[in-house]
Amino acid sequence: MQVIEKESIIVLEGGNVTTPKGFKAGGVHCGIKRKRLDLGYIYSDVPAVTAGVYTTNLFQAPPLKVTQESIEKEQMIQAVLVNSGNANACTGEQGLKDAYHMQAAFAEKLCVPNHYVAVTSTGVIGVHLPMEKIDNGIQQVLLEDNEGATLFEKSILTTDTDVKNICVQFVIDGKTITIGGAAKGSGMIHPNMATMLGFITTDAAIGYDDLSAALREVTNQTFNMITVDGDTSTNDMVLVLANGEAKNQPLTKDHPSWSLFMNGLKLVSESLAKQIARDGEGATKLIEVQVKNASDIEVARAVSKSVISSNLVKTAIYGTDANWGRIICAVGYSGQPINPDTITVKIGPITVVENGLPTPFDEDEAKEYLQNELVQIYINLNQGDATATAWGCDLTYDYVKINASYRT
Amino acid sequence: MQVIEKESIIVLEGGNVTTPKGFKAGGVHCGIKRKRLDLGYIYSDVPAVTAGVYTTNLFQAPPLKVTQESIEKEQMIQAVLVNSGNANACTGEQGLKDAYHMQAAFAEKLCVPNHYVAVTSTGVIGVHLPMEKIDNGIQQVLLEDNEGATLFEKSILTTDTDVKNICVQFVIDGKTITIGGAAKGSGMIHPNMATMLGFITTDAAIGYDDLSAALREVTNQTFNMITVDGDTSTNDMVLVLANGEAKNQPLTKDHPSWSLFMNGLKLVSESLAKQIARDGEGATKLIEVQVKNASDIEVARAVSKSVISSNLVKTAIYGTDANWGRIICAVGYSGQPINPDTITVKIGPITVVENGLPTPFDEDEAKEYLQNELVQIYINLNQGDATATAWGCDLTYDYVKINASYRT
Repeated sequence: MQVIEKESIIVLEGGNVTTPKGFKAGGVHCGIKRKRLDLGYIYSDVPAVTAGVYTTNLFQAPPLKVTQESIEKEQMIQAVLVNSGNANACTGEQGLKDAYHMQAAFAEKLCVPNHYVAVTSTGVIGVHLPMEKIDNGIQQVLLEDNEGATLFEKSILTTDTDVKNICVQFVIDGKTITIGGAAKGSGMIHPNMATMLGFITTDAAIGYDDLSAALREVTNQTFNMITVDGDTSTNDMVLVLANGEAKNQPLTKDHPSWSLFMNGLKLVSESLAKQIARDGEGATKLIEVQVKNASDIEVARAVSKSVISSNLVKTAIYGTDANWGRIICAVGYSGQPINPDTITVKIGPITVVENGLPTPFDEDEAKEYLQNELVQIYINLNQGDATATAWGCDLTYDYVKINASYRT
Repeated sequence: MQVIEKESIIVLEGGNVTTPKGFKAGGVHCGIKRKRLDLGYIYSDVPAVTAGVYTTNLFQAPPLKVTQESIEKEQMIQAVLVNSGNANACTGEQGLKDAYHMQAAFAEKLCVPNHYVAVTSTGVIGVHLPMEKIDNGIQQVLLEDNEGATLFEKSILTTDTDVKNICVQFVIDGKTITIGGAAKGSGMIHPNMATMLGFITTDAAIGYDDLSAALREVTNQTFNMITVDGDTSTNDMVLVLANGEAKNQPLTKDHPSWSLFMNGLKLVSESLAKQIARDGEGATKLIEVQVKNASDIEVARAVSKSVISSNLVKTAIYGTDANWGRIICAVGYSGQPINPDTITVKIGPITVVENGLPTPFDEDEAKEYLQNELVQIYINLNQGDATATAWGCDLTYDYVKINASYRT
C-alpha cells in the first residue's frame, strides 16, 4: 500500500471498508439488475456501535424506518445489507414487511439478532422488492471473499460510473485506528432520483453518543454540502460502524486526541462526498465553492450552497466561461445578510470581483483554468471569520440526456 | 380586434400597453445591440399613479434604486425608459450616475420632472452603459408611432424568442377600464442571467396605496410563481401605471367591483408570467403545477414551487416520461408539514399516485399527454383548502447549450 501523509493522518491507497480490523464485506448478483452486482453487505466480527443520518425527505423509504428503529434498540449493529436496482420507496405496508423480511433473512444467515442488521435499498421507486431473488442472494453470501470490499462497492452502485472508497489511519494512545468508507452517488433507474448512500467502518472504540455527535457534525460539513441537482432522495443514508477492535480506550469528546479522530472521520466523509459530486450525472468537473470571512457559519454555508446549486453557474463552468456575474447573482439571492460592497470573488487563482465590483482579468487565462477537472471558486465576504465549503458538478448535455431518457 | 369573453372580462387580441387610454410607447435602435431595437419607452399623457415590485437580490442594479426613489416622491410617474443589452448592474458609483443621467435626459426630452421617469436596464452585467448611444437614442424618440407598442415590446427583449403582451377590458360604474401589459423573460447576454421585466398600463383611476397592495397581491400569485432556472436576477422589476383616463370614480378596496379590477390585473399578470415561463431558455413546454387542499397558502406555494423547480421533473417532462417518483420526491423535500399518506398526483387527466401510493396507469396514454405544449400536474394534499399554482418550463439540451456558450 502506498501512503500519503496528511498531518498525522495517513491515507491508505487501496484501503476500504474492510481495512479496519474485524470487518468483512462482499457483493453478489441476485437478479434485481440484469447482470451487475446488486446485493452487498458489510459484516463486523463483533457488534459495532453504530450511528446514522437519514434523509429529511418526508417520503422516507421503509428500509430507513427499519434501520433507524433497529439502531435505536441497542445503538449497535453487526451487519449492513444493501440492494441496488430497487429503492423499496413508496411501497406502503408491503414495502415495510419486505424490509423486515430482508433484515430477518440476513440475520438468520449470520446467526445474529434481527435488530443487528441494517437494511437499505436504492433504485426504482414504487415497485415491490423481488423477495425471492433477495432470499436467494442472501444464501449466496460467503463471509470469506478476499476482494469482498470491491464487490461491495460495486454492488451498491446504480448509474455511478465508478466505485467510491477511502481509508485513513492514525494513532491514538499507541493504538492504530483505521477508518474506511464506501459510497454511491446519483444514479438513474425507473423513476430515478439521485440517492446518496455512505458506509463508514472503524475499529475505534467509542460510545454511541460521541459517535453520533461526531457523525452529525462531520455530515454537516461534508455530505450535506454537496449537490448534484438539488433533489433530496427518499433513501439517503450514512452509517458509521465502530467495532472497537483497535482496543483503544473508548474515545470521548474530552480525549486529547478527539480532534484527530474527528479529522480522520471528516477526511473520509469529505473524500466520499467529493467522489459523489464528481460522479454526478453527466458531470465532467468537480466544482468547489469556498466561502470565507462570513459573519457566521450559517451564512457561509447558505452562500456556498446557493452558488454551487445555480444552474447558470454550473452551465458556465461546463462551457469554461468565467461568468462571474452569475456567481455574484447567486450570492445575492442566497437570502443572507451580506454586504455587496465588500465581496471579493476568485475563480481559481484569478480575481474577478473586488469590493463588489468587476476587476479586469485575462479571459484566456480564466478559460484555461476552467478546463481543469477541479474548479475552485473563492468568495471572501470580508465580514467575519466563518468559513464553509460546498461541492458540486457542472450541468451538461449528458445530465439532460440521462434524465430525459424514457424509463425502461 | 377579436374578443374572448372570460366572465365579465374581455381579452382584447392584439391589445397592448397602448390600448388603455392616454398611453404611447415605442422603441428605437441606439447601438447597444448590433442590430436589434434596444431602447424602449412608455409614455402617459398625464402623470400616472405608479406602483412597483423589485428584485430581492442584494446586488440590486442602480436603475432600480433610481426608479424606486423616484416613485416614492409623488407615487406618480409619466414615462418609463428601458434599455436592453446592458444591465447597468455591478457598476458602482458610475452606474448610479449613468442611471440618473438616463432619467434626466429622457425627462428633458419629454419636458417632465426627472422623478416622473422610471428607468430600467437588462443585459450585460458589470459593463458601464454607453451613454452617448443612449443620449442619441433618446433624441430619436417620437411619441407618434402607430406601431409603437410592438416596437416597445421588441426593444426590451434579450434572448427571448418572442414578444410578450396581453390586454383586457371590463366595465366598472359604466366606465370601460383597460389594462395592458408587456414583459421580457430570460435572455442571455454577457454574463447573462434570467431577468424578468413587466410593464402594466391601465387607464383606471386608483390611489397609490390600493394600486400598490393590488400589485403585491397579484405578483405573489403570478410573477413570483414562475421559475426558469431558480436564479433571481439583479434587475427584476414590475411596474404598473394607472393614469385615470378612464375617468371612473377612483377605485378602492371597498368598491363593489374591486375584485373585478383585481381579476383583470391578475389575468394580465398571469398571462405575462406564463408567456415568460413558456419562453424560458431552451424551453419546449410550459409546465403548470396546481396544488390544492393544502393546510395553508404558504404550504401550497412552497410545494408547487418545489415541484416546478426540480431539474429531475423538468428533464422528465422534456423526455415525455411520466416520472411520478420525481414529483413525489420534490413534494417530500419541500420542507412543508404534509401528510405523505393522503397525497394524490395527476399528470394531466391521468392519476399516477393515490393516497401516497403508485396507482397503475397506461404509460402510452401518459407519454402521449406529455407531448402537449402545456403540461399540467395536479397535486391534491387532502389536508385543507388552500390552493396555489406555479409555472415553469422543461429543461432541455438547448438550455445547456445557451448557457454553456462562451460569452461573445
